[in-house]
Amino acid sequence: MSAYERLAARFARMATVDEAAGILMWDAETMMPEGGSAARGEHLAVLAGLTHEMMVAPATADDLAAAEAAGPGDDPWLAANLALMRRAHTRATAVPGDLVEATVRATNTCEAIWRDAHRTADFALVRPALEEVLRLTRQQGEAIGAVLGLSAWDAMADGAQRGILAADIAPVFEAYQTFLRHALPRAEALQAARPAPLPLCPVEIPLQEALARKLMAGMGLAPTQSRLDSTMHPFCGGLPGDVRIAGAFNAADPTSGMMALIHETGHGLYTNGLPAAWLRQPVGMAAGAAVHESQSLIMEMQAGRSQVFVDWMAGEMQTAFAGDAAAYAPENLGRLWRRATPSLIRVDADELTYPAHVILRFRLEQALFAGSLDAAGLPTAWNDGMQQLLGVTPPNDREGVLQDIHWYVGIFGYFPSYSLGAMAAAQLMAAARRAEPGLDAALGQGDFSPLLTWLKREIHARGNLLGFNELLRAATGKPLDPTDFTTHLTQRYLI
Amino acid sequence: MSAYERLAARFARMATVDEAAGILMWDAETMMPEGGSAARGEHLAVLAGLTHEMMVAPATADDLAAAEAAGPGDDPWLAANLALMRRAHTRATAVPGDLVEATVRATNTCEAIWRDAHRTADFALVRPALEEVLRLTRQQGEAIGAVLGLSAWDAMADGAQRGILAADIAPVFEAYQTFLRHALPRAEALQAARPAPLPLCPVEIPLQEALARKLMAGMGLAPTQSRLDSTMHPFCGGLPGDVRIAGAFNAADPTSGMMALIHETGHGLYTNGLPAAWLRQPVGMAAGAAVHESQSLIMEMQAGRSQVFVDWMAGEMQTAFAGDAAAYAPENLGRLWRRATPSLIRVDADELTYPAHVILRFRLEQALFAGSLDAAGLPTAWNDGMQQLLGVTPPNDREGVLQDIHWYVGIFGYFPSYSLGAMAAAQLMAAARRAEPGLDAALGQGDFSPLLTWLKREIHARGNLLGFNELLRAATGKPLDPTDFTTHLTQRYLI
Repeated sequence: MSAYERLAARFARMATVDEAAGILMWDAETMMPEGGSAARGEHLAVLAGLTHEMMVAPATADDLAAAEAAGPGDDPWLAANLALMRRAHTRATAVPGDLVEATVRATNTCEAIWRDAHRTADFALVRPALEEVLRLTRQQGEAIGAVLGLSAWDAMADGAQRGILAADIAPVFEAYQTFLRHALPRAEALQAARPAPLPLCPVEIPLQEALARKLMAGMGLAPTQSRLDSTMHPFCGGLPGDVRIAGAFNAADPTSGMMALIHETGHGLYTNGLPAAWLRQPVGMAAGAAVHESQSLIMEMQAGRSQVFVDWMAGEMQTAFAGDAAAYAPENLGRLWRRATPSLIRVDADELTYPAHVILRFRLEQALFAGSLDAAGLPTAWNDGMQQLLGVTPPNDREGVLQDIHWYVGIFGYFPSYSLGAMAAAQLMAAARRAEPGLDAALGQGDFSPLLTWLKREIHARGNLLGFNELLRAATGKPLDPTDFTTHLTQRYLI
Repeated sequence: MSAYERLAARFARMATVDEAAGILMWDAETMMPEGGSAARGEHLAVLAGLTHEMMVAPATADDLAAAEAAGPGDDPWLAANLALMRRAHTRATAVPGDLVEATVRATNTCEAIWRDAHRTADFALVRPALEEVLRLTRQQGEAIGAVLGLSAWDAMADGAQRGILAADIAPVFEAYQTFLRHALPRAEALQAARPAPLPLCPVEIPLQEALARKLMAGMGLAPTQSRLDSTMHPFCGGLPGDVRIAGAFNAADPTSGMMALIHETGHGLYTNGLPAAWLRQPVGMAAGAAVHESQSLIMEMQAGRSQVFVDWMAGEMQTAFAGDAAAYAPENLGRLWRRATPSLIRVDADELTYPAHVILRFRLEQALFAGSLDAAGLPTAWNDGMQQLLGVTPPNDREGVLQDIHWYVGIFGYFPSYSLGAMAAAQLMAAARRAEPGLDAALGQGDFSPLLTWLKREIHARGNLLGFNELLRAATGKPLDPTDFTTHLTQRYLI
């Protein structure tokens, strides 16, 4: 075996362990009885430690150097794979193994405390555990940043979406804040001038799940390749061929679960469409958190809330839920699904105000990592920021700084991906519409295949070959252009 | 850290990976869509390879030698733990790592083919894959046997239940065959002289599952420490605090699923009762397959089918299933649950004829490993053996040699544990009744706690401190004495 072949086998082995850990994480969220949580923390810590050991083993460094010296040849995929191996190695060797395991344990502890703190809206309860997570996470960021020449926060952000740093994000977010200052009052005024949406009657959860399963399969996720289960917050886990979607259905609100399902199915279709020839190799993975989010949001926000799709979906829902004709009329569902208003909870926010939630978190993370803010000051800084960005103030910390799990499990540098993904989704949808003139007519029949075929070719099949902006350029002819997003929002909310 | 402390940490790490693999195996049987099966084979192969690497690493051998040289001190648990570490190391280092991974892959392949072969009753379809599994498994047995001075089959049997070899098993089984030759006709004659049991009407599976959950909790497996799901063949997986029971409920036969549930709950209670102070150490594990089976069978066969328990259970079932009073009368359920008759399928066999199924498999395995029988000759040898032992002949291989998954996934040397466990269960029950005079009165109220308290102290809490016969001696005052089992059968079926 050549040095490169040995590397490929070792990276495949690490990816296999990561897949196993992914299924165990899915299990912890959907299946595991609470008596399993301490052991599960150990499982994940040990598996993370084992992949880290494989990565930092001297043989990996030796083979990397030898493979680079031999050169990757002419194949751009092979060259990208080798470069991504180097990148992963550099990031991993920057962090000592005991810091990796300590972080996994600290985040597991903090997550458990956060669940109690969230339930009781008691930030003080989780503050010490959060301080420990923050301390260890910053230490990781500093260690990686020192090697890559990045700030600690940029080092974390680079881990979420390669090459997209605070300096790239800040001006995009500032421009959006300016746009929103004018757009939100106008959208609210236009809404106020129209009839208020009629409310929907409650629908039993099994009926919702049955329609969700039909929708998943119709969108291209076959039941032989996926599962749908229930959890508190929807997510998509699993691996190609074994996609695990966890939905959150609410009898009182029979459509929010369906939209979340379309979102998660977008993630699952991306996972399932990754290039099989590069399975478990770095270049065969998803291209980062922002790209992943673009794939869920193009399904949920671009396709799923387009009027042509809502026209079709209204009939499906009315039939499946035996719903009231006026409430399930397409215009009414459209009003329900395209309503912009300031709110406290990010995951429930509409697409117009959602970026404000992300901007708040981005700025607080900058301050936390710069040391100008500490955990003790977070609740006040959060509430001030919400007031400034959206003019609302959380009545308690559950609806404020405690609402998201991310920080409590050590995820920093990640939030911007949600809004970069929303922007990329708008840009990709505009390009897909140009390339596939029948796309909207198909969506009007509940048929995602023209959109999915285009996404498979332009995004999914490219795996992790290209960075965020390079991928957008290959698919749409230009790097990220946030004006496609504001154009989309203008058409949907401001006219 | 001392050499022993380093060893303890390493063994805990290996056990953690094994626990993770156990959850993934449970997932594969209960949750995974079929598109995940190839990847799951890789997950399990890589995890098995990783624990094998940890075991055979030179540092493990060095620390073992150093810890043995230092001596374990006065604590018998510590001494047993060190001895069990040596045993595990000896067994593992006897097998090359590539043979371990090749076996995992071959058994995964064979299992998938077996599912088709079983469905279509086509032994020829799976024969080549079985030959490969058999070849690799024998190779493993020979490698281990060479180091331990055992035959290949004994080396496998020693892996299932330490120290219990073919020479221990053969005379016990011969004596049982003699007993059965007289007992079965007599039991059938006595049954024929009594009224035939009334059949039960079908019961919706959710009603059965609800009662099963109540029963599990009542037996001592709290819902915070366990799950109940569905599968084709019932099993119990998971770990202490996170027991995963997979039941098989059949609307047309509303009691067999309940008895299987009691059986699996016995396994789960053992898992949950292992000594927490030795969590993930070799001495803190279960004491082997036969001991595990004694814990499930004492619940199912000894307690669960005792008339006092049936008296109580009849009322529970009649209420939960809104059942017909005559069919759910205790005498009728007793007749249904204590009926002996020759049959083709091991897992459906009654406790009197069950050992004959095991004896057949034991003898065929002896012949396969001795080379006097090959895979091609298995179906005929199977059918001849069934005729000789029970006077019945399978109409096809699905009801014959294809019925059990064991051989197709490389499990040899294991079947005797089922009957050794049944014998041990009778012996333990007799001792528990002597020690706890209120045991039967409690069972008559559906209360397992006197039995469970005794089992926890005498069996569960001892972990893997003692071998099979030593454990029985500690709990009952004598090593395995199969006459306790034949006495039990005589009382239940022959008078």
